Amino acid sequence: MDHCKIMQEMGKRARQASHLMACAGSSLKRDALIMMAEVLRQEVDGIQSANEKDILAAKQKNLAKAKLDRLRLSDKVFDEMISGLHELALLPDPVGEITRMWTRPNGLRVGRMRIPLGVVGIIYESRPNVTVDSAALCIKAGNAVMLRGGSESFHSNQCLAAILRKSLAAVNLPADAVQLVETIDREAILEMLKLDDFIDVMIPRGGEELIRFVAEHARMPVLKHYKGVCHIYVDADADLNMAKEICLNAKVQRPGVCNAMETLLVHQGAAGSFLPFMADAFHKTGVELRGCERTRSLLPDCLPATEADWYAEYLDLILAIRIVDDLEEAIRHISTYGSQHTEAIITQNYERAHRFLQEVQSSLVLVNASTRFNDGYQLGLGAEIGISTSRLHAFGPMGVEELTGTKFIAFGNGQVRT
Amino acid sequence: MDHCKIMQEMGKRARQASHLMACAGSSLKRDALIMMAEVLRQEVDGIQSANEKDILAAKQKNLAKAKLDRLRLSDKVFDEMISGLHELALLPDPVGEITRMWTRPNGLRVGRMRIPLGVVGIIYESRPNVTVDSAALCIKAGNAVMLRGGSESFHSNQCLAAILRKSLAAVNLPADAVQLVETIDREAILEMLKLDDFIDVMIPRGGEELIRFVAEHARMPVLKHYKGVCHIYVDADADLNMAKEICLNAKVQRPGVCNAMETLLVHQGAAGSFLPFMADAFHKTGVELRGCERTRSLLPDCLPATEADWYAEYLDLILAIRIVDDLEEAIRHISTYGSQHTEAIITQNYERAHRFLQEVQSSLVLVNASTRFNDGYQLGLGAEIGISTSRLHAFGPMGVEELTGTKFIAFGNGQVRT
Repeated sequence: MDHCKIMQEMGKRARQASHLMACAGSSLKRDALIMMAEVLRQEVDGIQSANEKDILAAKQKNLAKAKLDRLRLSDKVFDEMISGLHELALLPDPVGEITRMWTRPNGLRVGRMRIPLGVVGIIYESRPNVTVDSAALCIKAGNAVMLRGGSESFHSNQCLAAILRKSLAAVNLPADAVQLVETIDREAILEMLKLDDFIDVMIPRGGEELIRFVAEHARMPVLKHYKGVCHIYVDADADLNMAKEICLNAKVQRPGVCNAMETLLVHQGAAGSFLPFMADAFHKTGVELRGCERTRSLLPDCLPATEADWYAEYLDLILAIRIVDDLEEAIRHISTYGSQHTEAIITQNYERAHRFLQEVQSSLVLVNASTRFNDGYQLGLGAEIGISTSRLHAFGPMGVEELTGTKFIAFGNGQVRT
Repeated sequence: MDHCKIMQEMGKRARQASHLMACAGSSLKRDALIMMAEVLRQEVDGIQSANEKDILAAKQKNLAKAKLDRLRLSDKVFDEMISGLHELALLPDPVGEITRMWTRPNGLRVGRMRIPLGVVGIIYESRPNVTVDSAALCIKAGNAVMLRGGSESFHSNQCLAAILRKSLAAVNLPADAVQLVETIDREAILEMLKLDDFIDVMIPRGGEELIRFVAEHARMPVLKHYKGVCHIYVDADADLNMAKEICLNAKVQRPGVCNAMETLLVHQGAAGSFLPFMADAFHKTGVELRGCERTRSLLPDCLPATEADWYAEYLDLILAIRIVDDLEEAIRHISTYGSQHTEAIITQNYERAHRFLQEVQSSLVLVNASTRFNDGYQLGLGAEIGISTSRLHAFGPMGVEELTGTKFIAFGNGQVRT
């Protein structure tokens, strides 16, 4: 059978499974997640040997160390996968929630009710834990899911997906609510991206190249995550000790992630007292500084920043610094160079805190807290399937709720339209 | 300049205007809408002569009468356009609304705030009033808009868009928040659909062919509306007089629209008493009936329905009728043949009313009311830019609120991540 037919058949089965999933009660979905955790635990040996096979093949292909790390289902990653399933099982079921209700002049009571999205497609790189994490989130929200993982994790994914399917069947939910695309070449992805009749939304998880490829070819909506060029603006009225702690945390605690600070903006009135003291802390933690001219006149050791630095997502211990005249210039800088990911203001001024919050259009805007909080767990969503940097449907971390939509409902007693 | 460059330039200007629009206060946006209504009224002569030019050209090209009707800016359509602007001006501003707020264990107060989507693209057929209606909705929600209307309405659209731009400038909002794509050939649309860096969402308004073309080629998300194959299920415990009035309204009041009933499902226990009495009412209003075998044994004059009838969107005085064994069979029929648009149950039974409401996954599900209520004005949204039949972001009628998204906001007092 060719790719087109295989994918169409998978799509049809996913659509059918999604109808059953949409009507599955909360306790059944909870049972499925707990069953998955149990069976994964039981079959840990089989999973590990499948993973070993992938690791061995990847080593023979000289896969980069970072990729190899992500491919490995270490004990720590395995335990997190299991505890993630238990936590997810305990979260409230978003499906069926009535988010609002109002009455029309003719007496019709109209409301909105949460429903699953239907079929979710996930295309990701070779991280086998994503197979379990994202399938579980989709199940919790009453969706069916079609997974296409990276080719290096082929054996691990096959083994994990079989366990997920078996667990669904064990609680009388449709096994086809989780399907793995097993063909490895790009043609299969292209066919998957044409299935707009069967897949309601596509979520690519991985590097920018993969995401652009999916966005370009998908006929269905794509929830995408590009880069995170996050800013902190230290205002004239900032508590400078608080500013220091937050900036240090945002840059140094985990520099390789999308919610780490990449550019520090400092009000000209605060720069003289703040920057030398802050630079000292950065110096001690090994952060390389690249500043505008005004910054360099305060910090002679600082390297000069070029235009490219303002756009840069370093994902490393490097920081761009710019002194700005006022809040307006800070906001303008962010809207020109930023990626609408995460921005924070440090200030004790009420007016400017609220203006920053209102006018900066990023997925998370904070006052007096670290950019590192832009994460589904940290914000209290309970779980996370990714961070969306486009605004339609979901903007910022996506939890279980973001895997649902709403329908309108109406209670009448004979209303007709005149 | 080639299409690609022209569209890129327009996209950049739209993006810039969208930054200003996002920060525009509620009163400024209201002033802009009222200004638009006033200037349209003042320049009615110019608008009418531009529209005459389009009508004349369309007549020479022998455009079909229905299309000619939609192209014509009659006094009635013109007045509705003006009163629509005034009504929209009075609606609450969705931007800045905080939809939820909660506190994390570390004291961080996290919430979600409504923000504009950014830049909205609208591709529509030759209906000049859509130029004003949809631009106004986008402005109200703080967006910039790029409009591409059908080629037959070229002169009308040019004239209307110029007035909208002038009105924006008159209240110190950016004229580029409304831009009209003036090149007529399809190449320009294709270039527009590639602008995923500049256009956040594309809303096609028109026939299925146009919508499929946009969905296939767009790199940005598309809010699309396919067909409406709407069902009414008359349950065993229905009030038969109520059922008759609702069915008549849903089929006859305006048969050519997407929320009219196309298939009637009747419980076998109600069919004997209901169908002859209902058929009589349909007979008097000129509705052609096509039924399943059981229906035809009750209604000998009824034509036989084929498999194709269950999928049909007649948009005409034709109705398919099927007798079903129970609620389950009704729901199965709807999920097999329906288009997820609008479905109603007529029943006095509490349990079945709620099961239907929960299990039918259409954009509007009603109990004891006509399907004709699936409309933004009728449901109380205040305005409507279209009806979405896909679930992501918006499902069902889209009002001003559906032209916004949400960002996360967080109030801290020094929180860092550990």
